[in-house]
Amino acid sequence: MDLAITDTLALTMRDDRLGILENATIAIQDGEIAFVGPTAEFDGDADRTIDASGRVAMPGLVNVHAHTDLTLLRGGAQDVPEIEWMNRALGPLTEALTPDDRIAGARLGVLEALRSGVTTVGEYAANVDRLVEEVYEPAGVRVVAAETINAVDDAAADLGPDEPYPFNETQGREALERNERLFESYADHDRVSCLYGPQAVDMVPPELLDVIRDRAAKHNRGIHMHVAQGEREARQIAARYGAGETTVSVLADLGLVSDRLLAAHLHGATAAERERLAEAGVRMAANPSSIAAIDGVMPPLVDYREYGGVAGLGTDQAPGGGGHDFLRELRTTALLAKTNRGDPTAFPAWAALRVATIEGARTLGIADRVGSLEAGKRADILLLDLEHPSTAPIVSDPLHTVVPNLVYGANTGLVDAVLVEGELLVQDGTVQTIDEDHVLETATERATAVFDRAGNAWREADSALVDRVETGWL
Amino acid sequence: MDLAITDTLALTMRDDRLGILENATIAIQDGEIAFVGPTAEFDGDADRTIDASGRVAMPGLVNVHAHTDLTLLRGGAQDVPEIEWMNRALGPLTEALTPDDRIAGARLGVLEALRSGVTTVGEYAANVDRLVEEVYEPAGVRVVAAETINAVDDAAADLGPDEPYPFNETQGREALERNERLFESYADHDRVSCLYGPQAVDMVPPELLDVIRDRAAKHNRGIHMHVAQGEREARQIAARYGAGETTVSVLADLGLVSDRLLAAHLHGATAAERERLAEAGVRMAANPSSIAAIDGVMPPLVDYREYGGVAGLGTDQAPGGGGHDFLRELRTTALLAKTNRGDPTAFPAWAALRVATIEGARTLGIADRVGSLEAGKRADILLLDLEHPSTAPIVSDPLHTVVPNLVYGANTGLVDAVLVEGELLVQDGTVQTIDEDHVLETATERATAVFDRAGNAWREADSALVDRVETGWL
Repeated sequence: MDLAITDTLALTMRDDRLGILENATIAIQDGEIAFVGPTAEFDGDADRTIDASGRVAMPGLVNVHAHTDLTLLRGGAQDVPEIEWMNRALGPLTEALTPDDRIAGARLGVLEALRSGVTTVGEYAANVDRLVEEVYEPAGVRVVAAETINAVDDAAADLGPDEPYPFNETQGREALERNERLFESYADHDRVSCLYGPQAVDMVPPELLDVIRDRAAKHNRGIHMHVAQGEREARQIAARYGAGETTVSVLADLGLVSDRLLAAHLHGATAAERERLAEAGVRMAANPSSIAAIDGVMPPLVDYREYGGVAGLGTDQAPGGGGHDFLRELRTTALLAKTNRGDPTAFPAWAALRVATIEGARTLGIADRVGSLEAGKRADILLLDLEHPSTAPIVSDPLHTVVPNLVYGANTGLVDAVLVEGELLVQDGTVQTIDEDHVLETATERATAVFDRAGNAWREADSALVDRVETGWL
Repeated sequence: MDLAITDTLALTMRDDRLGILENATIAIQDGEIAFVGPTAEFDGDADRTIDASGRVAMPGLVNVHAHTDLTLLRGGAQDVPEIEWMNRALGPLTEALTPDDRIAGARLGVLEALRSGVTTVGEYAANVDRLVEEVYEPAGVRVVAAETINAVDDAAADLGPDEPYPFNETQGREALERNERLFESYADHDRVSCLYGPQAVDMVPPELLDVIRDRAAKHNRGIHMHVAQGEREARQIAARYGAGETTVSVLADLGLVSDRLLAAHLHGATAAERERLAEAGVRMAANPSSIAAIDGVMPPLVDYREYGGVAGLGTDQAPGGGGHDFLRELRTTALLAKTNRGDPTAFPAWAALRVATIEGARTLGIADRVGSLEAGKRADILLLDLEHPSTAPIVSDPLHTVVPNLVYGANTGLVDAVLVEGELLVQDGTVQTIDEDHVLETATERATAVFDRAGNAWREADSALVDRVETGWL
């Protein structure tokens, strides 16, 4: 064996439970998990051993939906009315980002994710190939990349909310071709998988959605799309497809409601529509911190799981309440779910741990390779040291307090090791594959320049934040 | 000067705003803030200087309501129906705690709080004097202590919810006398203040509440009480005082609705009642993580502030979603408030920072001494290093991203220094006054024994968690 992680408390996520295993050993050979079981039953030799007594081993965390290339804008747009968020608060800052700023932001976002125990990110961006090449591959983090396909012409900015956006078909086709090249570049890659990324039903012409649907079926590929994000989208759908039509009804007419589809958000759909999607095998990406901050809404994650749907968690936007600390997202999701339902049993700690791992892997379509600790899966593993003031004490009888204390107490400071494909990306709490100081320094330098370039436009857009700056609050 | 903290980005909380000051110096003499202003205007000498460039200085955080002596039970009771939480999940564990277990738990809880930047805790416990002497004084953390006064006889456990609890008047009187001795022991103490702690209107006989009210008026003291916690309390009030009576109507009849009162929770009161309390100057302790986890409810913090009420944040219980990481509580509160109101502008980052500092100090009645960075106040100060993957980049123009990034991004790993009365309790991220390893080790040893002693009773109480253990979820 290349590596044995011994004497750990393992949460394996096997057999549709947490698979709690005390005094466990996990052995790795050629990036694959070769053994998971009681230390006493392990009789192999290992070139290297990590004594993980007092620590917890679990599958690496799976963030199913993120736009890390906006991370430089963190703090630029939050605490504003939803109607102002996109265009008046975030917009002027986004406009000022160069492609290299986006790379620098993604490096920061992926660094943050990795430090919080994330081993897979469902990345969603235009020109996502650059992020894969320049950020994910050097960092060693697994990525399921979707190329944003958006055909909305710039002229849409001048229209009212009930006028259908004009489409630029060339723009849409070019994006699809970038998406195709992505699939070709990363066919059978060990850490990179790809999805189609039509941004949303209202932002892509139906003819192009037909092409995407057919190609996905032909090549057995998945489709990652924002679905039912709220009022702006609902009005666009009605304007283009007719009153009474909704995102979900149009998706169904287009033959896109199937288990190929990964749908982000869904808070703009009705309960009946969500039930229909869940029954059809559509997978859901729920982004609680982001949607709470942008819309004041908790995504319908608990309902979707009750309908039998498969769902994962994402950090989505970095601006605002987002950021890519995924451990924190577990606690946030559990508490938002409880208050949203008025039920303290909603989204319990054990559900959070499964959604963060094996269910997230199912959501991204990679559960055959990762998401649980089982022989034959790839060795994407997280080790946490819970002997910490926010998570101690850990006791094992009459219940395992590791389960709630990890979800409700853990923070990035407890991440001891992160492995992807058996490679130690984080060791003794230190990131091995990213120069952290350099990433932070570059991010601050570039962000200072971005906010400076955007300054006048940001002030002129006159979101509610501008007044807050002038009156000493921001 | 004893100490100068130079070249920092200060959030002073002066003048009813954030008081953002770039390139600031804070000078300290004899535990008091002697100067706050631009570094260029500081011309004093200091025995010691902390170069705080790249860091943020703000008033130490004020946790207005906590029961740290239950911290050993962390992870023992959460994700259960509200009706099971107190008696069937937490109860058997609480019964197994010895007085020394409570001290060990409080040490862990105060350690956690201090590491998250807390300089003052509103502590609420029976025999709170032991916590003050053995935990707070050695740690150097400021405490506003309330002795729990509860006269409910043990026989109450056998009664139905609509039978008034029998009172044990001796038990109540003895607790009040402990509370009086507390005031005497800590008269004019630099870091210890005291409040009366009648647990709740339904748990103390009206005659004893009369005594407490009169003594509080005579000596100009405050009263810290749990108010309007929910259904169990509402039924007790109706059973004892008559149908139509509520906690707030009884409080008013008893003459307790005044600016002497610090009321924890309030989610069981009506909006009209809360408005009445706010107008009377009653201060509110809101405990979002705790009440979300126990009841599935976001406390009415935003409403209470809109009524003009003064409110602070508390971490309340450690079991469940609680814990005493106060930095985390800011983010949690903001996101719960937004989804609770369906409004992304609810409880913005700037409000969170004021509630966590100066408003918290007002809530505890100590704003003349702490809560802002101003010459003449005591030097309770927090330094944070936000050059971190979860909070960078920090830019200052056209807005200060430090405000949202601190609230939405900061975790305990960013706490660089914590001062109380000018004394460095945390320096370079390391706690100076508590032996962290020893506290963690003792907590784990004692908790293992507590859960072991409680095991059979916990299983016999048969909360929903017992089945979860048996089926591999916990």
